[in-house]
Amino acid sequence: MWRLRGRVAVATAVGLALALEVLPWVLRWLRSGRRRLRREVLFFPSQVTCTEALLKAPDEAAAALPNCCGCGLPHSESSLSRLMRALLAARVSLELCLFAFSSPQLGRAVQLLHQRGVRVRVVTDCDYMALNGSQIGLLRKAGIQVRHDQDLGYMHHKFAIVDRRVLITGSLNWTTQAIQNNRENVLIMEDNEYVRLFLEEFERIWEEFNPTKYIFFPQKKKSHSGRSLSWHRTCCTSSQNET
Amino acid sequence: MWRLRGRVAVATAVGLALALEVLPWVLRWLRSGRRRLRREVLFFPSQVTCTEALLKAPDEAAAALPNCCGCGLPHSESSLSRLMRALLAARVSLELCLFAFSSPQLGRAVQLLHQRGVRVRVVTDCDYMALNGSQIGLLRKAGIQVRHDQDLGYMHHKFAIVDRRVLITGSLNWTTQAIQNNRENVLIMEDNEYVRLFLEEFERIWEEFNPTKYIFFPQKKKSHSGRSLSWHRTCCTSSQNET
Repeated sequence: MWRLRGRVAVATAVGLALALEVLPWVLRWLRSGRRRLRREVLFFPSQVTCTEALLKAPDEAAAALPNCCGCGLPHSESSLSRLMRALLAARVSLELCLFAFSSPQLGRAVQLLHQRGVRVRVVTDCDYMALNGSQIGLLRKAGIQVRHDQDLGYMHHKFAIVDRRVLITGSLNWTTQAIQNNRENVLIMEDNEYVRLFLEEFERIWEEFNPTKYIFFPQKKKSHSGRSLSWHRTCCTSSQNET
Repeated sequence: MWRLRGRVAVATAVGLALALEVLPWVLRWLRSGRRRLRREVLFFPSQVTCTEALLKAPDEAAAALPNCCGCGLPHSESSLSRLMRALLAARVSLELCLFAFSSPQLGRAVQLLHQRGVRVRVVTDCDYMALNGSQIGLLRKAGIQVRHDQDLGYMHHKFAIVDRRVLITGSLNWTTQAIQNNRENVLIMEDNEYVRLFLEEFERIWEEFNPTKYIFFPQKKKSHSGRSLSWHRTCCTSSQNET
């Protein structure tokens, strides 16, 4: 009888031990799964570095000596180079929703992705896309699809979605002024939930800015939320003018 | 013998069943822990709603009838009201790092928090704080600590940190124009990692913008990264002017 009870106890202990063995493994798996997802914050101004090597084919970049372009800039990592790396990781699709886009380096990175067969779509603001130095004309010339707003409110987003998997968003307009001189932030997040929400926003805007809907001789401008009555409508207690 | 083996098998099965019972509970616990952390995205333009009730004491707000202020605006939830709720949840501290701040509603929310004893600190951009409609003067008048930059690059961040626990960041400048008319995004994230990084950035800027370091009669302006030689220094391949 004692022998029997002993065996029962041993079997129970084995079962529990198995459970305890499995549990840390599951926890580790869950944690490692979360750790693999990219979560990065870039702060600007970025150190001014040469980003030429990033824009070359891998074999060309490997063969090139540091400072081969003779630009005299450091060839180290910087916030700009990290942002470019995140973009250049695209293999299938890239959605850009940018208020201002005039950085030549980022413009070349986007053109390179287009040349590699990545499906690039750009949404931008109509007031800023025609300014001197804007990359938008060059992107269009290269065959990249670009759509823009037609109303008084700004298309003020500054985000990108890489391969429907990584969201890049923050305060940074893609201009050299902002990259080199401003206090800015950019989050790089591999996060399904955020990517889904921003992708939905992109598709909403993409559809709304469809050129078939453009009005070429508008009679009266309306805000995109349809509130044409009051641009600065506030509650009764507002006593301040807005800038 | 068969009876004995049967009992051993039963005991093993009980052990495994226990393990299987524990596992989903652990998984549920892990998931619920992650769900409790706030993760929200607000998109703008916001519907124009009355936010008066949010700025009243809870008993006043409860006693007030909808539309009591007679403003004629809907009293429903909107992106602006959600943003205000996230701010008004502060009990201990609020760090604001804002390029432009002219929204009267958000200004009143910040003043209310200051009156409630929340430690409010504001960092802003010197070019925009003196514009007509800016809330910065009113915040200073109310006794809130404000610091600003002194250089050519913009302090272009648009983030807030509530109780060192929740990060609010995105493309939105806190102006009525942006809230009511622009395409904007704001992320509200209860996330230790992001909060820590943005808090470090805030403290860096707070220290750098210490008034004891202001130069009242500057001889030559420098960028905050110390690169006074070239504001738009780019690599050798840049052929475009910047806006």
